[in-house]
Amino acid sequence: MTNSLRYEIRITGSGGQGVVLASIILAEAAGQFEGLYAAQSQNYGPEARGGYSMAEVVISKEPIDYPFVISPDILVALNQEGLNRHKEEIKGDGFIVVDTSNVVHVPEGRVIKIPITEIAIEETGKSMAANLVSLGVICGLIKIIKKTSFERAISARVPKATEALNLKAFEAGIRAAKKIKLSKLPPPPSEELIEDL
Amino acid sequence: MTNSLRYEIRITGSGGQGVVLASIILAEAAGQFEGLYAAQSQNYGPEARGGYSMAEVVISKEPIDYPFVISPDILVALNQEGLNRHKEEIKGDGFIVVDTSNVVHVPEGRVIKIPITEIAIEETGKSMAANLVSLGVICGLIKIIKKTSFERAISARVPKATEALNLKAFEAGIRAAKKIKLSKLPPPPSEELIEDL
Repeated sequence: MTNSLRYEIRITGSGGQGVVLASIILAEAAGQFEGLYAAQSQNYGPEARGGYSMAEVVISKEPIDYPFVISPDILVALNQEGLNRHKEEIKGDGFIVVDTSNVVHVPEGRVIKIPITEIAIEETGKSMAANLVSLGVICGLIKIIKKTSFERAISARVPKATEALNLKAFEAGIRAAKKIKLSKLPPPPSEELIEDL
Repeated sequence: MTNSLRYEIRITGSGGQGVVLASIILAEAAGQFEGLYAAQSQNYGPEARGGYSMAEVVISKEPIDYPFVISPDILVALNQEGLNRHKEEIKGDGFIVVDTSNVVHVPEGRVIKIPITEIAIEETGKSMAANLVSLGVICGLIKIIKKTSFERAISARVPKATEALNLKAFEAGIRAAKKIKLSKLPPPPSEELIEDL
């Protein structure tokens, strides 16, 4: 967001993993609590059956004309099918966050490996909290939305009975993200090209 | 949907009225349980503060190229601000459903008046269930998605502890819709024009 007004995030996984809720919380953290603009969406159709789910968020400092993800800055893949479908779409300087608890075949390149579902189970006893761990990872990596804005969005959206558990999962995601050094990722393809000249 | 492949629904209200959840359930009823295509989205931004919320759904028999509402077939307005902002946008043969529990200034024209929030309180004791009453109203009026598809989508999306109450609110919405005769609405502006010739 320092270089660009527009930031695109796609989250994909299977039906029960809560990717729609995660993307709504992300959009509300940005749009309702951080003072940015955000658009959140998902598509459903016969082809989306069989445990595949995808939701997306566009965040911008300006009103959003085209509210769909064109090429994600971040793809979060909570299962193999979501990864396989969307791995080629990321921006040159974007990256993929892979849940290594569920994804066996991890591609080369600008990929961050985090055992998101395992962390969810360790922290909360529930694999369902993987979506909140993912939000923590996103919060820790993108640094354009304050942690408190995420927390307010989480509290506003999840049932009161599960709020504490969800915030715990979110915290664990932030801790996992803090161990990641984005500068250690392979350079974007375009930069490689320039270096080769 | 008999005449057109594309059907657009916009739901608007204040922050706590659950319009986002209602529109997600509507899209999932269509896209996951009815075998149609559906796109669901909402925008957030600084201008959306102060208790204003809007979410939208596009339903189609074919894959959806442009997933945003262009001109709604139905606008459901749960509060005055949402109605004021969006009342001019509906399609010629579209209509507006107004929650007369919250809306004081109701426009002329193709408008259906239902005390949605009052019904929610009567049936469930909770004004928050207005969004599920709205879904029942939509189900009863549009007739392109089976009641069972709505029920499956509701059960999949709401917390188990509130499922029965939400289904009760939904049923009450269907009953309210059954009292409405769409043929009694004023004719669409274009038809009026033709009749004048």
